[in-house]
Amino acid sequence: MTSDLDTEQPNGVLPLRPDLVGLLPYGAPQLDVPHLLNVNENPYAPAPDVVADIAEAVARAAAGLNRYPDRDFEDLRADLAGYLRVESGVELTTDQVWAANGSNEIMLHVLQAFGGPGRTVLSFAPTYSMYPEYARDTFTGWVAGRREADFSLDPDVARAAIAEHAPSVVLLASPNNPTGTALPATTVLAVLDAAARVPGGCVVVVDEAYGEFRRTGVPSALELLPDHPHLAVSRTMSKAFGLAGARVGYLAAAPALVDALRVVRLPYHLSAVTQAVARAALRHAPALMAQVGSLRDERDALVVWLRGQGLTVADSDANFVLFGLFDDRHAIWQGLLDRGVLIREVGPDGWLRVSVGTPKDMVAFKNALSEVAGL
Amino acid sequence: MTSDLDTEQPNGVLPLRPDLVGLLPYGAPQLDVPHLLNVNENPYAPAPDVVADIAEAVARAAAGLNRYPDRDFEDLRADLAGYLRVESGVELTTDQVWAANGSNEIMLHVLQAFGGPGRTVLSFAPTYSMYPEYARDTFTGWVAGRREADFSLDPDVARAAIAEHAPSVVLLASPNNPTGTALPATTVLAVLDAAARVPGGCVVVVDEAYGEFRRTGVPSALELLPDHPHLAVSRTMSKAFGLAGARVGYLAAAPALVDALRVVRLPYHLSAVTQAVARAALRHAPALMAQVGSLRDERDALVVWLRGQGLTVADSDANFVLFGLFDDRHAIWQGLLDRGVLIREVGPDGWLRVSVGTPKDMVAFKNALSEVAGL
Repeated sequence: MTSDLDTEQPNGVLPLRPDLVGLLPYGAPQLDVPHLLNVNENPYAPAPDVVADIAEAVARAAAGLNRYPDRDFEDLRADLAGYLRVESGVELTTDQVWAANGSNEIMLHVLQAFGGPGRTVLSFAPTYSMYPEYARDTFTGWVAGRREADFSLDPDVARAAIAEHAPSVVLLASPNNPTGTALPATTVLAVLDAAARVPGGCVVVVDEAYGEFRRTGVPSALELLPDHPHLAVSRTMSKAFGLAGARVGYLAAAPALVDALRVVRLPYHLSAVTQAVARAALRHAPALMAQVGSLRDERDALVVWLRGQGLTVADSDANFVLFGLFDDRHAIWQGLLDRGVLIREVGPDGWLRVSVGTPKDMVAFKNALSEVAGL
Repeated sequence: MTSDLDTEQPNGVLPLRPDLVGLLPYGAPQLDVPHLLNVNENPYAPAPDVVADIAEAVARAAAGLNRYPDRDFEDLRADLAGYLRVESGVELTTDQVWAANGSNEIMLHVLQAFGGPGRTVLSFAPTYSMYPEYARDTFTGWVAGRREADFSLDPDVARAAIAEHAPSVVLLASPNNPTGTALPATTVLAVLDAAARVPGGCVVVVDEAYGEFRRTGVPSALELLPDHPHLAVSRTMSKAFGLAGARVGYLAAAPALVDALRVVRLPYHLSAVTQAVARAALRHAPALMAQVGSLRDERDALVVWLRGQGLTVADSDANFVLFGLFDDRHAIWQGLLDRGVLIREVGPDGWLRVSVGTPKDMVAFKNALSEVAGL
């Protein structure tokens, strides 16, 4: 095509993808208020000994930063496998572990390898609001099946949705965000079975970003890995490890699945500094896990208190609680913010989500909510 | 579709994208030899004062790592704008600057926003071997136009290719990898003009990963930003700053173009630690730029030496040199490796690429090459 005649063409028009026109960047407001309970961060800053270890590890890494990092970060993967062995009792080898800059990059890798144009990713709503964005970013079709009124997933509904849509990827958040709902093993097994019947294959990702906060007796999908080569379990250091700022997500799966992610990852995607920070933090896993225990207790106490106020509360296996129902949830959200407590207006209409904070955060939240909602 | 009859379906087959089947992960061999001259790293490790500043900055950041990082990293973008002002004399505002985990993530963001299925990205070969991978990762069509025998880009060839293929993105590496060739402003302007005539619009990315190594008098495309809203200039801290391990790439463009990248970036893609490391290193820019000057001198001396040996050498504005021609370049590459010198077998047949190292590296390279090639 010759274009010399396009004199009307404005100089420098941007060929933005049509499906992105008018969209705003994803993300909750980043506000500076005393009680940040909106993005499910761990309220406890790294302890001084963790900070010191991180700084020392980075100083060592910094002395060689002129070189590219280890592209396959074997040492970090071995450390993550070791951590999962202790946390979940599941034996994993290094080649079963993958990592990236946050579990959202993990999901991008999964959809780059197994999604794409003409393919479908299926999840069950209400669920994590980034999932459709991962689909959009990889040109994968997005289908949201439904959860029940109590946010559980009916295995028969899941089976039927998988059979109907023949997705190449199923995303299951467990515990689910924003509802806190963990899936029983029977449900995950039903999904895995239905996925194995999809012509062409189907990968099932169980997103356990909040897995460490699960209540006693609730299993991790890691236990199902040995018999299911199409299962991947993703985790993050953002929540239980209190390292949201370090951006370290990871995944466990069969070596063949991990190998597919290695093909689509950008080379050297994980910096030498990130590798050093993650490894330093992993050395402190026992102390950090003790903290997780106290956050679980705080979470359970919060659920009891909210129910005691006559509110409806979803069972939670995470470090946040979904509660309601409010005729005007935005007014409640704003009233809390006016009192220095930032929570999240998310989930089905009428519900609000609050992250579990320090005991001080929880007192402030309860006082503010009592005032605003007239409890 | 009901799938109860699919009893033949193997359990857990992986739905790998057909175009990825059989592919290996991208990347040069990571070998442990005395003289690493294969991936254009800066041979100088960060100085002790830089390491100390990085460690101190990370310690400060680590104390708040339980929180998500600043999603828009305004401080880092302001610092990068300040650096570019000094380096290139071009005034930039914070909203004209973007950053990511390496310039390869920058390119991914560009192609996610402006590429995609049914669209085409155009470059001119021989050029950076990752470009087709970015296209593949974003399902964008890849077209390679041609460079001349001396690796320059003929403006008329470029215009014709743009008119013929109507790409939504043009990638121009300048200095080009693996050839070292910088583009004159007249060529970039010809491409910008042709791109502005593409119906639907076309973004031109000038990839200046090696920009700081350009010879005196060679301009940066940053100077063209004010009049060209469809121009983006990408840079990296991997090369001139000697921070390949830290993974910091960045880009300068009109605010509207940067805003499009903000929509497709994964939230919190740049960790608080990466932001801290980059800002600490930027404070040492004057010292690092002095080092760049000595690498340029070393590069020029290497070109003179290679030509003095009767070899053909491409003009280089980068921190590497493409030289040849060898009937059996692999034998030369292997011979050098056997002598502890790792270079890169890349570019058109018969050529080899060597990174500019320390004076000691260069002596080892010259001695080894003299032996192996019988100079």
